[in-house]
Amino acid sequence: MASSPLHIAVIGAGFAGLTAARALKAAGHSVTILEARDRVGGRIHTKAAADGTPVDVGGQWIGPGQDRVLALAEELGVETFPSYETGDNLCLFNGERMRFSGILPPHAPEAVAETEATFQALDALAATVDAERPWTSPNAQELDNQTFEAWIQRTAQGPEARFWMRFLANSVLAADARELSLLHVLFYVKSGGGLASLISMSGGAQERRFTRGAQHLVERLAEDLRPNLRFNCPVTALHQDERGVVVEHAGGSLPADRVVVTLPPTLAGRLRYSPALPGARDHLTQRMPMGACIKIQCVYARPFWRDAGLSGMAITDAGPISLVYDNSPASGTPGVLVAFIEGEEAKLWTNRSAADRRAAVLGALVDLFGPDAAAVREFIEQSWLEEEFSRGGYGGFLVPGAWTTLGPALRQPCGRIHWAGTETASQWAGYMDGAIRSGERVAAEILAIAAAQ
Amino acid sequence: MASSPLHIAVIGAGFAGLTAARALKAAGHSVTILEARDRVGGRIHTKAAADGTPVDVGGQWIGPGQDRVLALAEELGVETFPSYETGDNLCLFNGERMRFSGILPPHAPEAVAETEATFQALDALAATVDAERPWTSPNAQELDNQTFEAWIQRTAQGPEARFWMRFLANSVLAADARELSLLHVLFYVKSGGGLASLISMSGGAQERRFTRGAQHLVERLAEDLRPNLRFNCPVTALHQDERGVVVEHAGGSLPADRVVVTLPPTLAGRLRYSPALPGARDHLTQRMPMGACIKIQCVYARPFWRDAGLSGMAITDAGPISLVYDNSPASGTPGVLVAFIEGEEAKLWTNRSAADRRAAVLGALVDLFGPDAAAVREFIEQSWLEEEFSRGGYGGFLVPGAWTTLGPALRQPCGRIHWAGTETASQWAGYMDGAIRSGERVAAEILAIAAAQ
Repeated sequence: MASSPLHIAVIGAGFAGLTAARALKAAGHSVTILEARDRVGGRIHTKAAADGTPVDVGGQWIGPGQDRVLALAEELGVETFPSYETGDNLCLFNGERMRFSGILPPHAPEAVAETEATFQALDALAATVDAERPWTSPNAQELDNQTFEAWIQRTAQGPEARFWMRFLANSVLAADARELSLLHVLFYVKSGGGLASLISMSGGAQERRFTRGAQHLVERLAEDLRPNLRFNCPVTALHQDERGVVVEHAGGSLPADRVVVTLPPTLAGRLRYSPALPGARDHLTQRMPMGACIKIQCVYARPFWRDAGLSGMAITDAGPISLVYDNSPASGTPGVLVAFIEGEEAKLWTNRSAADRRAAVLGALVDLFGPDAAAVREFIEQSWLEEEFSRGGYGGFLVPGAWTTLGPALRQPCGRIHWAGTETASQWAGYMDGAIRSGERVAAEILAIAAAQ
Repeated sequence: MASSPLHIAVIGAGFAGLTAARALKAAGHSVTILEARDRVGGRIHTKAAADGTPVDVGGQWIGPGQDRVLALAEELGVETFPSYETGDNLCLFNGERMRFSGILPPHAPEAVAETEATFQALDALAATVDAERPWTSPNAQELDNQTFEAWIQRTAQGPEARFWMRFLANSVLAADARELSLLHVLFYVKSGGGLASLISMSGGAQERRFTRGAQHLVERLAEDLRPNLRFNCPVTALHQDERGVVVEHAGGSLPADRVVVTLPPTLAGRLRYSPALPGARDHLTQRMPMGACIKIQCVYARPFWRDAGLSGMAITDAGPISLVYDNSPASGTPGVLVAFIEGEEAKLWTNRSAADRRAAVLGALVDLFGPDAAAVREFIEQSWLEEEFSRGGYGGFLVPGAWTTLGPALRQPCGRIHWAGTETASQWAGYMDGAIRSGERVAAEILAIAAAQ
């Protein structure tokens, strides 16, 4: 190494922070990772059911095109298995319960045609967006002027097509169509390789799961970084001058040459900075709220729905849940259904009692899967809105007007402070893969500076 | 007083905090006001030009209907004077400089008609909104589904009508039409008594100014509270349990029975809370960014524009400024023009050098007022985006989808923590008057609890 080693403080021990730390350490620099929680993983978190079955209460799926996370799993020898998708799916729409295979249930032919046309229109529009710099896309201003909901109402007339688009916002972004900038939705679709890639199981982002849970991969990634990790260290402030940065955290303060902040932008905005960050960067953090997601796992003695030829995948417009998958372990026992409460429903239901939520969710599962769904052995819920160190999930999104006025501030370093995290990725933003890519990008950013010094 | 006195910590020494503190103190409670800055006033700040002329770099105008601020000024004997509005206004639109009187310049008759019709449509829609609980308004969901920009494009076809609506968002809310929820705009218009009330000088919100600057009124209000005030005390954390609250600040920690937080919601969201705030409250603070405003005052030997029969009021679509007023002191000497850079332009120009901004602003003033505008004696600028303890201005606004899902969390206390600040007002939200009303409301909220104990 030509230049002298730097000391780099990395804030956050999720995929982004660990990936950056690993690359910087490998290049001969000294690294300290400050983690607010008592574990690695951030929005990746695997708990265990009473019988030890791993239960991913955070991110869990990977699929083709997510090359960086796939490479990492292979490198570290972390085992994956295909998501279960044998059998029919269910859809409860407008009071009607439909059993179907494929993407769409048996709506009336004109409703199916309009829904497919709307999907295609969205996909075609997304293909025009520059995911690296969305604000330079053709008609970026026009696309950023409106909510996704406004586009839906203009593009689709039937209730089915509109439902599926709103469901897409809920299930893919954990946000409401009306709070999303259309440009942000298009960026997200482009970043994930198109709609089919985002919404599919086989061939898409939900294709595979980690046998021991997603946190297993993070743990393996963290293994060589244990000496560099400090837990229970929420960072409160960053002070920088010409000589370096001082990171204030719960356990004291840490001097560094450079800092990598991997927090979602809204949480990064909550640190105190001196000197204060430039106005444009601060205003960006004010305009990138977190999605809202409550993830619920229902553990059953066995996956009873499989006996009935059902895949466990279900979609409902009756609330509070919107989407269900078979989330049983690779062995198939116990049976696990994962249900998502997203967007507006999550903001509403996170305020209610655990007992009310349980009753409502089990009621919804019974309406879909029949009375057996009531015989839950364990009910494990995780409201990401209540997680102090995430404050939402899956990730942050930009509200209308923000990409085209403040977009460059998302990745632009502020002096010695560099920004990573899945929100800063241009490929697979919002996914584990995007987090890893952001860690690689920020490490390269710092290594280039170190090399030039 | 029936119950035992409480100790209340008030965070922020602007109008909201001082009003609340005064009312609570008057009722026999003990109060400590923690202020991050070294002065009272918050977003109200009066500086002095070189010759001592008071220059309001923050909020400055008051008008009819703003009963609480008017009453306070009268009670405390603080002098006001009418804003200068004699002579013609100017408008630079699409390269054409127009001189006019009244609200609108001499656009083509059909453009004037459409602009007036659009104003009326907005006003009529605003009249349907419940400013106390906007989420209960008729069609609240539909109104909150869209940006103000989307409504503009649907309602107005001509460039003039569209320009005036976007100008309204810039000049009244310091925000871009495309980042505002339509429902929020309607709430704001309703809260300020209708469009004519909001945009007018005589008869409206810009009718009068404080002779010694707006901060004079805050200073007078603070006089009896000096023993209760602690400056340079930014608050970092609030811990509450059954017994009370502990407020952590730069100078140590302070125990209290109740806390009043008067910060704009986005800044309130940046404090650390234990226990963590409910998800819905946190998500609200993620969805209420600050407007963006750079306020510039140009001091001239005399108000040269008055000689030419001009009022000093000017509107331009050429940027970076959008709006100019005569801001000379009551005596008329020196001459002062105040120019506003708002919304997108502010987010862009806050990043540029002071020299570039000065050149661009003076260039724009010369285009409007002629070469005399270049002979500026003093150029005083204030970018509210860069103010660490405001992070924008005039105030916070809700993005699409937020009012109808999270609205109740704006004022709902969280345990011992009560929320005030102009953003929480239902009348004159965003104005000094709204701040005072919010202080009165929160004091009444706490007094009712104290009385019930």
